[in-house]
Amino acid sequence: MVKYPTGSLTPYAKNNNTTISSHKKHKTSVNFSDRGMTLEQQINESNKYYLFQDIAVVHKKPTPVQIVKVDYPKRSRAVIKEAYFRQASTTDYNGVYKGYYLDFEAKETRNKASFPLKNFHEHQIVHLDKCLKQKGICFTIIKFVSLNRYFVTPASFIINAWNQIDKSSVSLNEIIEHSYEIKSGYRPTLPYLEVVDKFILDRN
Amino acid sequence: MVKYPTGSLTPYAKNNNTTISSHKKHKTSVNFSDRGMTLEQQINESNKYYLFQDIAVVHKKPTPVQIVKVDYPKRSRAVIKEAYFRQASTTDYNGVYKGYYLDFEAKETRNKASFPLKNFHEHQIVHLDKCLKQKGICFTIIKFVSLNRYFVTPASFIINAWNQIDKSSVSLNEIIEHSYEIKSGYRPTLPYLEVVDKFILDRN
Repeated sequence: MVKYPTGSLTPYAKNNNTTISSHKKHKTSVNFSDRGMTLEQQINESNKYYLFQDIAVVHKKPTPVQIVKVDYPKRSRAVIKEAYFRQASTTDYNGVYKGYYLDFEAKETRNKASFPLKNFHEHQIVHLDKCLKQKGICFTIIKFVSLNRYFVTPASFIINAWNQIDKSSVSLNEIIEHSYEIKSGYRPTLPYLEVVDKFILDRN
Repeated sequence: MVKYPTGSLTPYAKNNNTTISSHKKHKTSVNFSDRGMTLEQQINESNKYYLFQDIAVVHKKPTPVQIVKVDYPKRSRAVIKEAYFRQASTTDYNGVYKGYYLDFEAKETRNKASFPLKNFHEHQIVHLDKCLKQKGICFTIIKFVSLNRYFVTPASFIINAWNQIDKSSVSLNEIIEHSYEIKSGYRPTLPYLEVVDKFILDRN
């Protein structure tokens, strides 16, 4: 099992822009800042932290691929030689936290004042709606890249907006009004479970 | 959205071995018997049924693939030209049912009196254990192909057996003792949620 690194780490310096260049990045290494990380990387790092600390089990789903042709070279691992991307039927992330089912999608925008709803695909909206009916805790994490702001928005708000035919985007103000804002940090990189705790409180 | 077929279907005949050859199979069609279906197909059909009936949302996770090279031919969809299978870090199935998180693995054996534990990989056992700690409902569906018998076995039993160093298999009798048996049927093909209801009752 992969061990979570706990010692001998260069201390985290909030305003230090230098990167640890002497350490090659490993697959299992943990990044200590959000600089240069995509939202997906930030969430994956956070999920790794939550997993190793036994706080939650949340994974990103693999990209669905239709495999057509595979070579099995001798003394070497199988190589997929022909495959195609398939349409996903779910959101990217799901998992379990304190007995609750979590389901969410992560979206980035470079816009500064609104979030375009075309960032969502119909299958994601349908899936979030189905999961809500099963009493899952469903939301989206929206990152305004230019503003460096992160919002955890309930899926119900996104579904309602998406279903309004004449609505092509939601304004930043609407998002602020209907979401919890979170700050990127150290461990985890993006503490979105703090908001899930609020959703759980709101529910009970 | 895909519609679940509700009418104009040839009635299900339990002892009728002919197949409906005049109807071409569509991706969204539903099979009406377990003959010739693998356990995975049976579970996928059942999940489709549960999904379209708004009973539960359970999906098989895609096979994780590391994509190395993709061609983007003009006027044609992208072709993955080089990719490799990656080690999964979870089980194959998860989802949500009545607010409960479900997580399970499906296994077939051609054995008649025991189930070899080497069918489970360490990452599956670790994952099931992590999900149990988060109060997920975790189990395995085991099919004894030669006997045409299906068991829904709590993950805790499998984890305990797997952790016994000198134990390489669990006997059919042990499985009978610790599991609920289910019969394959019509709709759904494999009604495993009936057992989940029992797990929920046992818990409360």
